[in-house]
Amino acid sequence: MDIEQFRKAGYQAIDNICDHFYNLQNLPVRPDVEPGFLAKSLPDAPPEKGEDFQLIADDYHKVILPGMTYWPHPSFFGYFPTACTFEAILGDLYASSVPNPGFNWAASPAATELEMVVMDWLAKLFHLSPDFLNSSGIGGGALQTTASDSALIAVVAARSKYQKNHPDIPIEKMIVYVTSQTHSLGAKAALVLGVQVRTLEATTEDDFGLRGATLAAALKEDIDMGLHPFVLVGTVGTTSSGAVDNITEIVQTLKSVDRDVWLHIDAAWAGIALSCPEYHDWAHLKAINEYAHSFCTNLHKWGLTNFDASTLWVRNRRWLNDALDVTPEFLRTAQGDAGTAIDYRNWHLALGRKFRSLKVWFVLRAYGTEGFQKMVRRHVNLNEKFIDLVKSSNLLTLVATPSLSLSVFRLDPVDTTSGERRSRSATADALNTLNVQLHKRLSSRSDVWLTQTSLNGTFCVRLAIGSTNTEEKHIDHVFKLICEESEATLKAEKWLKD
Amino acid sequence: MDIEQFRKAGYQAIDNICDHFYNLQNLPVRPDVEPGFLAKSLPDAPPEKGEDFQLIADDYHKVILPGMTYWPHPSFFGYFPTACTFEAILGDLYASSVPNPGFNWAASPAATELEMVVMDWLAKLFHLSPDFLNSSGIGGGALQTTASDSALIAVVAARSKYQKNHPDIPIEKMIVYVTSQTHSLGAKAALVLGVQVRTLEATTEDDFGLRGATLAAALKEDIDMGLHPFVLVGTVGTTSSGAVDNITEIVQTLKSVDRDVWLHIDAAWAGIALSCPEYHDWAHLKAINEYAHSFCTNLHKWGLTNFDASTLWVRNRRWLNDALDVTPEFLRTAQGDAGTAIDYRNWHLALGRKFRSLKVWFVLRAYGTEGFQKMVRRHVNLNEKFIDLVKSSNLLTLVATPSLSLSVFRLDPVDTTSGERRSRSATADALNTLNVQLHKRLSSRSDVWLTQTSLNGTFCVRLAIGSTNTEEKHIDHVFKLICEESEATLKAEKWLKD
Repeated sequence: MDIEQFRKAGYQAIDNICDHFYNLQNLPVRPDVEPGFLAKSLPDAPPEKGEDFQLIADDYHKVILPGMTYWPHPSFFGYFPTACTFEAILGDLYASSVPNPGFNWAASPAATELEMVVMDWLAKLFHLSPDFLNSSGIGGGALQTTASDSALIAVVAARSKYQKNHPDIPIEKMIVYVTSQTHSLGAKAALVLGVQVRTLEATTEDDFGLRGATLAAALKEDIDMGLHPFVLVGTVGTTSSGAVDNITEIVQTLKSVDRDVWLHIDAAWAGIALSCPEYHDWAHLKAINEYAHSFCTNLHKWGLTNFDASTLWVRNRRWLNDALDVTPEFLRTAQGDAGTAIDYRNWHLALGRKFRSLKVWFVLRAYGTEGFQKMVRRHVNLNEKFIDLVKSSNLLTLVATPSLSLSVFRLDPVDTTSGERRSRSATADALNTLNVQLHKRLSSRSDVWLTQTSLNGTFCVRLAIGSTNTEEKHIDHVFKLICEESEATLKAEKWLKD
Repeated sequence: MDIEQFRKAGYQAIDNICDHFYNLQNLPVRPDVEPGFLAKSLPDAPPEKGEDFQLIADDYHKVILPGMTYWPHPSFFGYFPTACTFEAILGDLYASSVPNPGFNWAASPAATELEMVVMDWLAKLFHLSPDFLNSSGIGGGALQTTASDSALIAVVAARSKYQKNHPDIPIEKMIVYVTSQTHSLGAKAALVLGVQVRTLEATTEDDFGLRGATLAAALKEDIDMGLHPFVLVGTVGTTSSGAVDNITEIVQTLKSVDRDVWLHIDAAWAGIALSCPEYHDWAHLKAINEYAHSFCTNLHKWGLTNFDASTLWVRNRRWLNDALDVTPEFLRTAQGDAGTAIDYRNWHLALGRKFRSLKVWFVLRAYGTEGFQKMVRRHVNLNEKFIDLVKSSNLLTLVATPSLSLSVFRLDPVDTTSGERRSRSATADALNTLNVQLHKRLSSRSDVWLTQTSLNGTFCVRLAIGSTNTEEKHIDHVFKLICEESEATLKAEKWLKD
């Protein structure tokens, strides 16, 4: 394809994308297909000779696009929705045209420096301590692919730091702390590194957030047994229910035991809300800023920036360099040798890295602080509408305190005779089975998407709001559907006969 | 930005990218800037209110673009050049418009299935064993971000497999094998996992490739000491000189000792040449297909696909699932539970992953097998031209056998009196110093880029050809510049007085 053919195909791509977004809310959220649908319809080997691009682009629209799940759909309420903005798409488009692996400053000076700048802008947007700024010269931040990567990097750095300070401790004695509500990224980091993991309880009474006393008891127990907890993954806004660990108590506890335990804060989803001062106390920002060794939030979840754009800040960049720097001759540069530039290859697991800062810069400038705040508050307001609907319902109850734009609920109908919720009389298992059936019904629909979770044994359904296109009418619509499917579930499961 | 504003900004982006590529060869390869140049010219915080996109796009062209190193420049000969094709840019553009984190089949069925399909197409393009095909139901392949990621995943899976088969072996007794020529990805994987690494010698006499006897001796020594080598990272096409480990001998050795050692093949750069049958023996493809546990090549290096697009195949997908599967309730799906679909989250370190298969599909269809072969052969031919020029030169000599499109050379002038190369009379240190100076001079130029390496103590300069825009005239030009800078170096270092 030559430059003029690219111009033509590029215009067409832009037009097609416009059409897609005009049409998006009329499409199903997810396709009605079975595993294997696509492989069957494609040849089993690449063509011998190249094909005309028009044919390929047409096939994309005919064969691939209808098989996608549309995460930016206004009725997508599953997992946490992914961000999607035109500014980020344009940022990625421009970045694609200047490909470079960005592993050191020289590989593309502007790519490294723009990343340094936008990470500082973001730290300020989220009101993080100046300790985390790249301009501090000590701490700093880098873009990563996902929160799992960020957590893995934090755990690797924590292990390296701990082993440096305690060279005689065998890895078998070292433990990663997570909670029963920590995202699987905590367990996966431990699995990847082959270290023990201890899951601390986050109780229903504490609204699924870790308390200081639970941590203190575990630390005492493990230390008494000769074990070495070296990192705790604390969460602001868990995936299951948006719970927040009591970071204030956690920091008090960690300070009082003084055992060199790294505190990583995973705020993959909820961190974006730190752009709004009214959530600072809720998120324990003061304690994070005082003590946390590392902090992560994902711009590609709630931060208006298309996947991938995870952020990781550390209070001391040396911890990353100590843990991750391998420099053969072919990777040396004058600037790296002189220490005058950040070589981001030492701030992550791989070597090459994308020019992701461009889309972040586009988004930060196009939306400004006000744009982030407005978006967060709009989604929280939409969730408040949903919460009001649930609270007024005879069918549904909330299972956990709603968190920002996330609600967790279940079917727990009021008994028409007694006027009491059925959870008073039914067994936990029976109610779980009922809700599994409700979720199955909801999952079989292609016009909305909600995912499930289990909160300390209680099966429930999540409603996560995050699409820029979601409006009040979509909340009304999904609530109506949930009620219809609830009624149908009660009938099918013969609960209505009682 | 609304849809019509996006259309306008999108057309403009396409036009600007066209302008950039029309102008590319007139631009310097790399910018003449010092660390800190960009941060100084940007505000130190994001704007309070959003800005007009035209202003942002203009600033990109004024401030950011001139600070980039242009890897697709025809005179970029450093590291390994990164691939850049319009088809891949378009693939990424379309993929950006359907953002999804792709961690399981349901997250976007077409994204998972297209990845399964293109990985099989690629396996066939590179003539890998059918064992590695997704359609085998046993082995399979997935797109990863980089070769470092691929190697780290392979090492994690190898460790998991070894520990499963040998549950009593402590991690302190386990060793990763790399060679003195393995990319830093081997050492970095070991560093990340906190396991020992042993560097096997790849001698100058063996053209920097590992031999079976060296491996056999190391295995015997380590096994006798009670250590457990569990993975060897073998390389087809090292970064320093494009060397190839003698995989045939390595496989013979591993089979004869029968110690459950995982063989990972890192063919990050050279693997693309497997599209041409004439390189199969050179790359020891038969031995790879017979024995290797995992194989990686990077489409974003020589494979016509923009960063990132690394590939990783394994002979048994269970090894990945065993090593990397963590499934909390909120990640369960009907298809995952039923085992009818691949959940790619268990095939890499993170959870979320990009929809990278689209650009790969675009590229494979637009170029076909012929397009890959033509591109590889064209670059190899250009390198042959360069080799001829070096061989006819009184200034330069080759340090290693040239490999595909990579040559490694140094300044080693013929003494006009004796008619012999100066390396016969000068010390190794003196000649190294001379070449460090030559490379410094070359590095201070902005019209070409070549990077350096050290081959068992011999400092040398690399010329790696890989841009789709590089033509004969650029080879002539870079050779002329190298000769000029060589003459200048000899004068400045007072070698010409002798």
